[in-house]
Amino acid sequence: MEEESQITKGKYAADISSIKEAHARIKSLVHKTPLLSSSSLNAMSGRKLYFKCECLQKGGACNAVFSLNDEDASKGVVTHSSGNHAAALALAAKLRGIPSYIVIPKNAPTCKIENVKRYGGQVVWSEASVQSREEIANKVWQESGAIFIHPYNDGRILSGQGTISLEILEQAPQIDTLVVPISGGGLISGIALAAKSINPAIRIFAAEPKGADDAAQSKAAGRIIRLPETNTIADGLRAFLGDFTWPVVRDLVEEIITVEDSEIIKAMKLCFEILKVVVEPSGAIGLAAVLSDTFQKNPAWKDCNHIGIVVSGGNVDLAMLWDSLNKGK
Amino acid sequence: MEEESQITKGKYAADISSIKEAHARIKSLVHKTPLLSSSSLNAMSGRKLYFKCECLQKGGACNAVFSLNDEDASKGVVTHSSGNHAAALALAAKLRGIPSYIVIPKNAPTCKIENVKRYGGQVVWSEASVQSREEIANKVWQESGAIFIHPYNDGRILSGQGTISLEILEQAPQIDTLVVPISGGGLISGIALAAKSINPAIRIFAAEPKGADDAAQSKAAGRIIRLPETNTIADGLRAFLGDFTWPVVRDLVEEIITVEDSEIIKAMKLCFEILKVVVEPSGAIGLAAVLSDTFQKNPAWKDCNHIGIVVSGGNVDLAMLWDSLNKGK
Repeated sequence: MEEESQITKGKYAADISSIKEAHARIKSLVHKTPLLSSSSLNAMSGRKLYFKCECLQKGGACNAVFSLNDEDASKGVVTHSSGNHAAALALAAKLRGIPSYIVIPKNAPTCKIENVKRYGGQVVWSEASVQSREEIANKVWQESGAIFIHPYNDGRILSGQGTISLEILEQAPQIDTLVVPISGGGLISGIALAAKSINPAIRIFAAEPKGADDAAQSKAAGRIIRLPETNTIADGLRAFLGDFTWPVVRDLVEEIITVEDSEIIKAMKLCFEILKVVVEPSGAIGLAAVLSDTFQKNPAWKDCNHIGIVVSGGNVDLAMLWDSLNKGK
Repeated sequence: MEEESQITKGKYAADISSIKEAHARIKSLVHKTPLLSSSSLNAMSGRKLYFKCECLQKGGACNAVFSLNDEDASKGVVTHSSGNHAAALALAAKLRGIPSYIVIPKNAPTCKIENVKRYGGQVVWSEASVQSREEIANKVWQESGAIFIHPYNDGRILSGQGTISLEILEQAPQIDTLVVPISGGGLISGIALAAKSINPAIRIFAAEPKGADDAAQSKAAGRIIRLPETNTIADGLRAFLGDFTWPVVRDLVEEIITVEDSEIIKAMKLCFEILKVVVEPSGAIGLAAVLSDTFQKNPAWKDCNHIGIVVSGGNVDLAMLWDSLNKGK
C-alpha cells in the first residue's frame, strides 16, 4: 500500500475524484471502447494481452469541454494540435454546440485535418514550429475570447483520459500491467493516476519512439528534457512533457520503453491483420514495446502476465499506411 | 404478432431454442463484439446506424464444433471454404483440441489461407470449382472419418450465427431493422430466426453484390437460383443459397438490396476511415446497401430509423485493399 499514499489529493493535476467526476460527466457522450484479445498475439508475446481500442474513441476531449461553465463555453474553445486532440476538441465542441478554433501546422496529416473539418472545427493555419502554433493560438484567444484547452498539459484533459483506466479495470480486473503511448504525457498521466488509485500494485510502462525519446531522457535526467528535433513515423508522439504531466510520469511510470520505427510498423501491421483495427503508428507503439527485446528479455518484467495495451489514435492516411507497411517488409 | 407464428419449432434448421443453447455453449469461447456508431455516418444516411463488428470475431464456427459429441469430434472436422468459415473452423477445432482439414481452392486470398494455417488447420488444395471442392472434401471425409461441417447449410452454423442477434438486441434494443450480407445465407438465416423471435416486428434486409445476385433472383423467382458465374470484389459473397437457408430467406427477409462493387469499395473506405475497423468488401456491403439510392429513395423504408448493420469479415489482403480503394477514387 506504500504506493497509494503517493497520490494525495492536490499533488497532481488530476486525482481519482476528478477522474470519477469526468466519467460521470462524459459517459453518455463517449463510446465505451472494446477490450480485444488475440490468441495469436498472446502466443507471440508469451503474455495475456488486452487491447483497449481507444482508436475507436472519438470523444477524447469531452471532459474538458463539458466541464466549462455556460458563460465560458459560449465563446468557444481553441487549441493547437496537429493530432487527435484537434479532432476530439472539434467534436466535443460540436456536441456542446459551441465554436472551436483549431490551430493546425501546415504539415499535419490530411486525414487529421479532414476530421477537424468534418466535426465543424474552424481550421486556423500555423507554421510547423511550436512557437508559431502558440502565437497563432494566442491571437485567436485574444480575438475570440475562446477558452484555450491544451492538448495534454491540462487537468481536465488528464481527468478525461483517466476514465480509460476505470473502463479497462472494470473490463479485465486481472490486468497487472498497463503499457501506454507517451507524447506530452496527458494520456499516460490520467491513466496512471486512476489505475494506481484503484490498484496501487499495478505497473505502468510508457512506450516511446527512439526518434522522439524526450520522456526517456527526462526520466534518466530527473527533469523535463526537450529535444531540438524529433524523427519518427509516429507523428502523434512528438510532443514534450509539460509541467502537469512530468510529475506523474516521474513518480508513477516504472519505465519508458523506447522502440524503433521499424518495430512500430510491424506492430501496426499486426493490429491491422490480426486485431482488425485501423491504428496509426502512435497507436500501435504499445504492442511494439511489449514485443520488443527490451521488454521481453528483462527478467524484472517476467511477471507482467496480464498486460493492458492502450491502442490510441486510428487516424492514418491510407497512402501513408501503405507506404509504411511496405517499408516494414 | 402475426409474424411470430411463422417460426414454429422444427420449421427451419434452427430456432430460438437452438440459438440460445448455442449461446450458452460458446459464450466463453467467442468475443462479444462491439456495436459501434458514428455521428458522421448517421448524418450521411439520415438514420441511426449501429455497426455490429463481427469482423472482430474469430470464433464463428465454435457452435458447430463444440456441439459434436466426443467420439465424433475425436476424428476432427472437414470443410471446403475459401473464406472466413475456413479460418473459423480451424480455430474452433484448435480450441477443442481436434484436427481440422480445410479444402481451399487454389485461387483463395492469401490472408485467408494464412489464417487457416495460423490456427493449425491442415490445408488441402482443390481447384476453384464447387465440384472440385466437394470432391476433395468428400475424399478427406472418407479417409479421415472427420465430420463434415458445411460453411452455411447446417443448422449448427445457423444457430451459432443466430447468437449475433441476441447480442445486438441486448446492446441496442431500439434497433428496428437489420441489414446483413448474404452469400449462402447462413449468417442472415441465423440472425433473422433469432431477431424475429425476439421482436417479430423487426425488419430484415439482405445486402448482395449485383455481380452475384443469386439471392435476389431466387426471391424474385420463388425458388433457389444458382448462377453460372459470379463477378464481384466481395469474394466472401459468391456462394449460393442452400436448402436449409433458402426457406428462411424466402420467409423472413423483406428484400435483397443489390449494390455495385463501386458502392462496396466506398463503404469499405468509410469503415476504414471513420469506424477505424478493417473490413473486407463482403463485410462493408451492409453499409453500402443502406447508403444506396435503392434503400434511401424507397418510401416504404423511410421508417427504418434504427438500423443494425452486421459487419462481417475483416480478412483483407493489404495489397487488395489498397488496389480497390484506389479504384474507388
